[in-house]
Amino acid sequence: MLVELTDTQNQPDERGIAIDRVGVKELQFPLEVLEKGGGKQRTVSTVAMAVDLPHHFKGTHMSRFVEVLHSHGTLLDVNNMSGLTAELLDRLEAERAHVSFRFPFFITKAAPVTGREGVMSYEVSFEVEASGQERDLMVTVHVPVATLCPCSKAISARGAHNQRGLVSFSVKFNRPIWIEDLIRLVEDSASCELYSVLKRPDEKEVTERAYDNPVFVEDLVRNVAARARAQDDIRWFRVEAENFESIHNHNAYAVVELPGGSS
Amino acid sequence: MLVELTDTQNQPDERGIAIDRVGVKELQFPLEVLEKGGGKQRTVSTVAMAVDLPHHFKGTHMSRFVEVLHSHGTLLDVNNMSGLTAELLDRLEAERAHVSFRFPFFITKAAPVTGREGVMSYEVSFEVEASGQERDLMVTVHVPVATLCPCSKAISARGAHNQRGLVSFSVKFNRPIWIEDLIRLVEDSASCELYSVLKRPDEKEVTERAYDNPVFVEDLVRNVAARARAQDDIRWFRVEAENFESIHNHNAYAVVELPGGSS
Amino acid sequence: MLVELTDTQNQPDERGIAIDRVGVKELQFPLEVLEKGGGKQRTVSTVAMAVDLPHHFKGTHMSRFVEVLHSHGTLLDVNNMSGLTAELLDRLEAERAHVSFRFPFFITKAAPVTGREGVMSYEVSFEVEASGQERDLMVTVHVPVATLCPCSKAISARGAHNQRGLVSFSVKFNRPIWIEDLIRLVEDSASCELYSVLKRPDEKEVTERAYDNPVFVEDLVRNVAARARAQDDIRWFRVEAENFESIHNHNAYAVVELPGGSS
Amino acid sequence: MLVELTDTQNQPDERGIAIDRVGVKELQFPLEVLEKGGGKQRTVSTVAMAVDLPHHFKGTHMSRFVEVLHSHGTLLDVNNMSGLTAELLDRLEAERAHVSFRFPFFITKAAPVTGREGVMSYEVSFEVEASGQERDLMVTVHVPVATLCPCSKAISARGAHNQRGLVSFSVKFNRPIWIEDLIRLVEDSASCELYSVLKRPDEKEVTERAYDNPVFVEDLVRNVAARARAQDDIRWFRVEAENFESIHNHNAYAVVELPGGSS
Repeated sequence: MLVELTDTQNQPDERGIAIDRVGVKELQFPLEVLEKGGGKQRTVSTVAMAVDLPHHFKGTHMSRFVEVLHSHGTLLDVNNMSGLTAELLDRLEAERAHVSFRFPFFITKAAPVTGREGVMSYEVSFEVEASGQERDLMVTVHVPVATLCPCSKAISARGAHNQRGLVSFSVKFNRPIWIEDLIRLVEDSASCELYSVLKRPDEKEVTERAYDNPVFVEDLVRNVAARARAQDDIRWFRVEAENFESIHNHNAYAVVELPGGSS
Repeated sequence: MLVELTDTQNQPDERGIAIDRVGVKELQFPLEVLEKGGGKQRTVSTVAMAVDLPHHFKGTHMSRFVEVLHSHGTLLDVNNMSGLTAELLDRLEAERAHVSFRFPFFITKAAPVTGREGVMSYEVSFEVEASGQERDLMVTVHVPVATLCPCSKAISARGAHNQRGLVSFSVKFNRPIWIEDLIRLVEDSASCELYSVLKRPDEKEVTERAYDNPVFVEDLVRNVAARARAQDDIRWFRVEAENFESIHNHNAYAVVELPGGSS
Repeated sequence: MLVELTDTQNQPDERGIAIDRVGVKELQFPLEVLEKGGGKQRTVSTVAMAVDLPHHFKGTHMSRFVEVLHSHGTLLDVNNMSGLTAELLDRLEAERAHVSFRFPFFITKAAPVTGREGVMSYEVSFEVEASGQERDLMVTVHVPVATLCPCSKAISARGAHNQRGLVSFSVKFNRPIWIEDLIRLVEDSASCELYSVLKRPDEKEVTERAYDNPVFVEDLVRNVAARARAQDDIRWFRVEAENFESIHNHNAYAVVELPGGSS
Repeated sequence: MLVELTDTQNQPDERGIAIDRVGVKELQFPLEVLEKGGGKQRTVSTVAMAVDLPHHFKGTHMSRFVEVLHSHGTLLDVNNMSGLTAELLDRLEAERAHVSFRFPFFITKAAPVTGREGVMSYEVSFEVEASGQERDLMVTVHVPVATLCPCSKAISARGAHNQRGLVSFSVKFNRPIWIEDLIRLVEDSASCELYSVLKRPDEKEVTERAYDNPVFVEDLVRNVAARARAQDDIRWFRVEAENFESIHNHNAYAVVELPGGSS
């Protein structure tokens, strides 16, 4: 019976329009990610996969994307990720393939004074573009931080407005880079990093540290950019910061995109 | 031809299960809301409408909800809102009806020192429950504010962490209450209210005001509650506050629900 | 130094307003959930934890919530979940505690004809209310399904509009219930269940099955309700269905809340 | 006093990093949009505004963005929109400016058989890039449609799976183009357009029309592309379609970006 069912997707198309990207989105799948310490971390990812489609094919075969994703079992190891694009190119007979994984990543962090440990979560994404034998990998870490306004500090008799900000730092690199190191680079660029557990001595410490290190949203992206430019394993980066201003109901943001230290 | 099309919804149902609420959701519709100053404000609302369904009917008539919504034209005046539920009860032959409108509401506010004017937006919702001749109306204002942590201020040599918070304040009342007054009540309960335009002298003022008025999330809901209890036109209220902590990646929240000053 | 830092939260409060619920929200934490097959599944949860606060205390101790969450390590086992509320009652000196966990849950499912396996994801939540020695646990499964409109089928010469719907089914029970069984109950109540991998013979099967089993949103909640009423381990349930109508830009929805078969 | 407050933003910066874009985001503001019929429509927009920042300035002046937005009053007329960027370039002493407005747009549409009128809502955005005297304007319409699967129809004995899809169609053009015409172009490219009010004869009509016009997500973007290529007022376009598959819990999507008919 299988052979009798019309393969509509394989029919020719006459409109002469090639499709840049066609595939599936918003698929949830378990993922195992390598940790700097040597272990592996289980998490849950939201997946998108796509290929190009030449003008003469009517449609792609959507079920093959999901089959390729499952071809290594019901849990994806991050090591298999670039292999995925090779399989997509092959199974979908495509010239270009694109896959992306977005997932929460957990880091256990000690409070700065008491040393109490707590788990911090960060949103991370991997994107792979494949074309023939070439692979282009981009990693993005989304890092929440505290920012304290230099202007507010300078003009006020006491206090300074501060708030949570979110930094999205994307990099392309020459040798593998640890997620933990990218997050650390961003956290060192803010007024203060965030913690999940803070006892009173810790809260005193982070309050004063933020007050002593005021940064505009512009400073935040420049601090990240200056560090990224100095690192010779980074080929390209883009950093965007968004401050959820505590004095406004709108957000401040800034973006810088530059070649990295290896260029 | 119209009469020949089967009316599936009107067929009897044998499962013996009455439905509490059935209707439509996530409908967008233009709305005109009264302002305290006497004018009318045009905005855009997200609408939900529902009725109960006795166990012996297979289905309700979904298109009638939308027809009732349109029965006054292509713009809903807030004065017609409670009339809507009466029409729903009638057209859908129901015992109970429920409608809700969620919309942005704009207030022009002067900066505290320079007096520069800016437009602040607030999310507001109206909900009407109707049963026979009874109408139960609830208004909710969602008000963004600044909160400064009393503990951080007390233990730190300088500065204090602060952040944006969001207060959701729902009230039922004896006589009509202005949206503007509910928002004002909440803004007066926080460390500082928010503005859309702040020049440097204004920023100095709001920074110092917040520093001088530290509130925990608990204080914030209690400040709102104390004011609401004192107001004899409020019959019932619920206040929830959520702080987007600038030292954590999670939020702090608190909730109080109480009879109002008229009870 | 620890003892010298002011404990602002412990100060007395004069407003006389008890707080219903105060705590933390939107915390991400790794979670391990039991599977019906005997295994354990690693996933990622979004956590909220709260307690009541008597009127005479100024504030709760927010860091203790996170410490209690971490007290069993950096991964929460679902078995420890009700123990959590006991610890919260104790550490926060509270009368009532509330914890909730929302997480994606994965089930490997075979396509109906070819048997090809694919991983389906479902959003699940656990909520525990604790008061003294009493525990009240509620489990909710959010199950995406296909619904095909009975009216559209009855009146049309060919075809029938259908769409994705989302059923949220919450239950309280007498003995532990498997997540997998709750999901199955919902999937059996729709026009057709969803799959992640479908080859052409499978697609033919699910298309025809949906066409042969039309359900209104009202039928969907009644089908779930009829099954839940018949199950003597369910004490109470609430089912809400929302259809993302393929002929409208708004959604249809229905809700039923009833005692379960054990009542 | 104004002159005495430190202007931190005006201080020199030594890091040598120019910022691509700095500004404000997620600001809500009332907007008036021209309708094809000659009238004006009041709606509510979410606004972002940004400029570039040379490497030698420490910060931009955030409050000026909001002042420029307000410079024409408390309601923005769409005619003033490109003037906004000129003012930004001037007030912020910038080389490049970027503004975007995202808003719901309403169209009254008659049901296909009964002619009953209902209001449909569409998300629309305007983006202007300005550099010196040059202006580059892009309009995007987000149009919900119905799509019916050609493969499912071809292989099934009865019925065919269909679902809501969302098409995002962005264009740059030589002469002003009406929002209504862009939406119409997209609606004509799908299996069937959506309506807010449909009586039974209308529902029969849209069900059969969708069944008679099956389109893959690939067909949908190609149909839009073919029409856009034929229109000599379009200079460039990008069309993305996403189908909320009724047989899967993930979405299918496709993207095409091409020069328009005027190139």
